[in-house]
Amino acid sequence: MKIDLNCDLGESFGAYTIGMDEKVIPLISSCNIACGYHASDPLVMKKTVAMAKEAGIGIGAHPGFPDLMGFGRRNLNVSPAEAAAYVTYQLGALYAFAQCAGVKLQHVKPHGALYNMAGKDYKLALAIAKAVQEFDPSLILMGLSGSQSIKAAEDIGLPVAKEVFADRAYMPDGSLMPRTMEGAVIHDEELAISRVIRMVKEHKVTACDGTDIEIIPDSVCVHGDNVKALAFVTEIRRALEAEGVTIAPLV
Amino acid sequence: MKIDLNCDLGESFGAYTIGMDEKVIPLISSCNIACGYHASDPLVMKKTVAMAKEAGIGIGAHPGFPDLMGFGRRNLNVSPAEAAAYVTYQLGALYAFAQCAGVKLQHVKPHGALYNMAGKDYKLALAIAKAVQEFDPSLILMGLSGSQSIKAAEDIGLPVAKEVFADRAYMPDGSLMPRTMEGAVIHDEELAISRVIRMVKEHKVTACDGTDIEIIPDSVCVHGDNVKALAFVTEIRRALEAEGVTIAPLV
Amino acid sequence: MKIDLNCDLGESFGAYTIGMDEKVIPLISSCNIACGYHASDPLVMKKTVAMAKEAGIGIGAHPGFPDLMGFGRRNLNVSPAEAAAYVTYQLGALYAFAQCAGVKLQHVKPHGALYNMAGKDYKLALAIAKAVQEFDPSLILMGLSGSQSIKAAEDIGLPVAKEVFADRAYMPDGSLMPRTMEGAVIHDEELAISRVIRMVKEHKVTACDGTDIEIIPDSVCVHGDNVKALAFVTEIRRALEAEGVTIAPLV
Amino acid sequence: MKIDLNCDLGESFGAYTIGMDEKVIPLISSCNIACGYHASDPLVMKKTVAMAKEAGIGIGAHPGFPDLMGFGRRNLNVSPAEAAAYVTYQLGALYAFAQCAGVKLQHVKPHGALYNMAGKDYKLALAIAKAVQEFDPSLILMGLSGSQSIKAAEDIGLPVAKEVFADRAYMPDGSLMPRTMEGAVIHDEELAISRVIRMVKEHKVTACDGTDIEIIPDSVCVHGDNVKALAFVTEIRRALEAEGVTIAPLV
Repeated sequence: MKIDLNCDLGESFGAYTIGMDEKVIPLISSCNIACGYHASDPLVMKKTVAMAKEAGIGIGAHPGFPDLMGFGRRNLNVSPAEAAAYVTYQLGALYAFAQCAGVKLQHVKPHGALYNMAGKDYKLALAIAKAVQEFDPSLILMGLSGSQSIKAAEDIGLPVAKEVFADRAYMPDGSLMPRTMEGAVIHDEELAISRVIRMVKEHKVTACDGTDIEIIPDSVCVHGDNVKALAFVTEIRRALEAEGVTIAPLV
Repeated sequence: MKIDLNCDLGESFGAYTIGMDEKVIPLISSCNIACGYHASDPLVMKKTVAMAKEAGIGIGAHPGFPDLMGFGRRNLNVSPAEAAAYVTYQLGALYAFAQCAGVKLQHVKPHGALYNMAGKDYKLALAIAKAVQEFDPSLILMGLSGSQSIKAAEDIGLPVAKEVFADRAYMPDGSLMPRTMEGAVIHDEELAISRVIRMVKEHKVTACDGTDIEIIPDSVCVHGDNVKALAFVTEIRRALEAEGVTIAPLV
Repeated sequence: MKIDLNCDLGESFGAYTIGMDEKVIPLISSCNIACGYHASDPLVMKKTVAMAKEAGIGIGAHPGFPDLMGFGRRNLNVSPAEAAAYVTYQLGALYAFAQCAGVKLQHVKPHGALYNMAGKDYKLALAIAKAVQEFDPSLILMGLSGSQSIKAAEDIGLPVAKEVFADRAYMPDGSLMPRTMEGAVIHDEELAISRVIRMVKEHKVTACDGTDIEIIPDSVCVHGDNVKALAFVTEIRRALEAEGVTIAPLV
Repeated sequence: MKIDLNCDLGESFGAYTIGMDEKVIPLISSCNIACGYHASDPLVMKKTVAMAKEAGIGIGAHPGFPDLMGFGRRNLNVSPAEAAAYVTYQLGALYAFAQCAGVKLQHVKPHGALYNMAGKDYKLALAIAKAVQEFDPSLILMGLSGSQSIKAAEDIGLPVAKEVFADRAYMPDGSLMPRTMEGAVIHDEELAISRVIRMVKEHKVTACDGTDIEIIPDSVCVHGDNVKALAFVTEIRRALEAEGVTIAPLV
C-alpha cells in the first residue's frame, strides 16, 4: 500500500520568501513547483528543482494565473484557449529547469483559482489536459478527486493522480464541501489523519451527511509554509507509515 | 552560397500589436520569437510558432529582460546567474509551444539590451551560452559577429550563427560602430545591400576607416515592423538571389 | 441642451500603441485616461494629460484591473477592499500628472471588467464610490446609466455622470442588453445616432421590447481606436450639433 | 538638538511579507513607503499609511524602478524623463492614500538603484527633483548627504533632508565608501553609534583616511526587516536620547 504526499514549493519571489521548503522536502514525496505567474521567479525555480532532485521527490509543474498580486488565488475569467496557453508556457519554463538539471517532470497540478475553476468547468479542464498531453502525454495531471479536471484528463487518456485533502469535509457526491459552509474544514488533527488513513487503506471517507463514500486517493495535499503545517505533515507521515503505508512519488 | 535572413517576430502582447509578422514571414528564413519577458504572451507565442512552422522557417527563442515597459531595450544590471536563469525560463516556455506544434527550435538570440550587454561582457555571454547548452547542446547561439557572445559560445562548443547588420557601419576591429558616433547607421539602401552582398560572397566589409576587414556572416538581421522595413527586406532578398545567393535557415 | 462625448485615451504602453488619440481629441469633450494597470505607463499618462489639457477637454481617471495581458477586460474576483485600493492607487497616479500639468480631474470611470462588475455589484460599486469620495468628493463618478455604480455613488452623495452607448440596445428596465443576446449591438449607424439624439433631447429610448423607457444621459461613450470609430464620432458629433445640442464637458 | 530616524516601510506585496513594520514604527520618526513599483501593493500602501499616521511619524514616498523581481535594486538604464515620470506616478499613488487618510506627505526618497543612480548622476537627480517640485514644492527630497540628489534639489530650491548611514564609512570628499572597498561597512555597533552621535552633535565624522570631515545630517537611515536591525535601532535611539538628542520627523 502506498500514497503520495504532495506540497507546493518554490513560491518565493525575488526578495520575498514564502514557504519552509528545505524543512518540508524531507517529509513529502512529490512537489508542485510554481512557474513564475502566480509566484516564483527563474532563480527560485532553478533552486527548487535542484532541491527536489537532490531529495528524489516527484517534480510537478504548478501553473497559475498571471496574478502575482493575488498569488493566483482570485478567479480570472480566462478562455479555455488562454488557460491552455498559460499552462503550456509555464510547463515549458519549468521543464527547462528540470531538463538542465537532468531530471524528469512527473506531473502538472494547476494552482489556486485555476485549480478550482478547472475542477468545476469541464471545458477549461479539457483545454488544460490537452495542453499537458500535447507537450508530453506521459505527464500526470494531478487534480481534485471527483473533479472535472480528473474527468477531462481521463477522457483524453492523460494519466491522472487523484488528490485528497486531510482537513476538508466531503459532500455525498465526493466533491469538497465549499469553504463557505460550516464544517468545511476539519480542525481536529487526529480526525483528519484517521480519515486519510481510511481513504488510503479502505478507499472510503465519511461524507458530511454521515454516509460512507468511495474515494481512491493517489496523493494527499499537505502544506509547508508554517511551523504548524510542518508538524501536521510530520504527524500524518508518521501515522501513515505506522499503518504500513509507504510514502512514495506517483511513479 | 547561402545566407540566413532573421527577423524578430511575435512581439505583440495582449491587446497590443507590434510587427507585420504575416507579411515578413515569406521574406525571411529564420525568426526570433519573443518569449514573454520583454514582449509577447502565451497566445502570441503559440500563434507565432504555428505561422513559422507553416512557413518552414527556422525558429529561435528571443529571450529578453523582464522589462515589458521598456521593451527589453534598457540595460538592467543583472548578474550572470540571473541572466542565465531568465534565458532558461524563456527558452523553455518557447520550447513548449514548439514541442506542442511538433517543430524543433533552431537557435537562441538574446534580445535588445540583453543582446548588447552580452555582446560586450564575456561573463554574461558565457552564462547565457551555458544555459542554452545545458538545455540543448544542439541549439545555435545567434550573436553579433565578433562579439563576446560568439566567443563565449565557441569556447564551450555551442554552435553559433554570426549575425551582421546591413545598415550599420563597422569599426576596424569588426565591432559595430556605436550609434552615438556619426555614420553609425547607413541610410543609403543601395550601399547597405551591396555591403551585405560583399560580406556574403567575399567575406569582406569596408570598415569606417576605409580598410577592408574580414567578416563571415551566417545571418543578416532584418526588420518587419513597418512598410519601409518590409520593402527593404524584399529588396535585399531580391538582390541576394540575383547574385546567386540562396536564402535559407541556419540548418 | 448639452451632452458630453467621452472616449478612452492613453492606452498605449511602452513600445506599444493603441488608439488614435490625437485624431479623436478634437471630436470629444471628456476623456478617460488609463492609469497603468490595464494599460498605459507614466510617460503615456504625462503626454495624454498634456494633450487633453491643451484641447480643454474634461479629464477623467480610468482605473482598471492589474491585468495588462488581458487589457483589464477579464473579470477578476477581487474583494471590494481590493477594488477600492486599486482605484485609489490609480486615481492618485493620474492626479499627480494632472497636478503637475496644472489641470483638475473631472471624473473617474472604471475600465472594462471593473466597470462591468461594479455596474452589477452594489458592494463593489459602493467601495469604488467611497474610494473616489475619500480622495476628492467633488469628483464625478461616471457609470452606466441605471447601473449599481450610479446608484451607489448617488447613495453617498458623490456626483455622477450617467453614460449611454449609441450602438447598444436597452432592456425594458434600462439596463444594457447583454452582448450574448441577439440584437445587443446596433449596427445601423443612422439608427444609433437617431437614438442618441432622442435620448439627449427627449430623454427617451426604445427598449428591445418596443416600449419607450426614460433615460437621462450625461455622456455618450465613443471610441477612437480605428478609422471607422473616428468616422462615427465625427458623424454623431455633427448630427448632435445640427440638432442644436452643444458638445461640452461634464462641468 | 534633533535628528530624524527614517526607515523603509510597506515593502510587503500580496501574499508576501517583508519587514517588521509594526515593531520598527515606534522606534523611528519618519518612514519611506514603497509605492508599488519595486515593492508594495495598494492594500499594503493603505495599511502602511494608516499605521504611520497613527504613530505620528513623517510619511515619505519611496519610489523605485519597475522591477519587482529585483526589488528595485538593479540599475536600470532609464532616461531622466522616464525616471521623472516614474516618480510622479508613484508619488501620486502614495499621495492618494495619504489624502484619503487625511495626512500630509513629508518627503520623497528614491529607492535602491534609483537612489544610487540619482546620487551620482546630476541629470537624473535634477529630473527627479523637478518632478517632486512640480507635484508639491513643499515636499522634502531626502537624499544621501553630499550626493547629486541633494545638489540638484538645492539648485532648484526644493527642500532637502541629508541622510547619513550609521554603518558606512565615508570618503574624504564626504561620499560613501563603495561597498566594493574593504572597510565600507562598519560592523562595530558601538563605533557606528558613536559616529552618528558625533555627526549629529558636532557635524563631524572621521573619513576613511583618518581626517575629520564636516557632515550635517538631517536623518539617519535605519532598517526594520530583521530582529538584529530592530535591536540596533533601539540602541541608536537610546544612545541619541541619552545624549540629549530628540528623535523627531523632518518638519
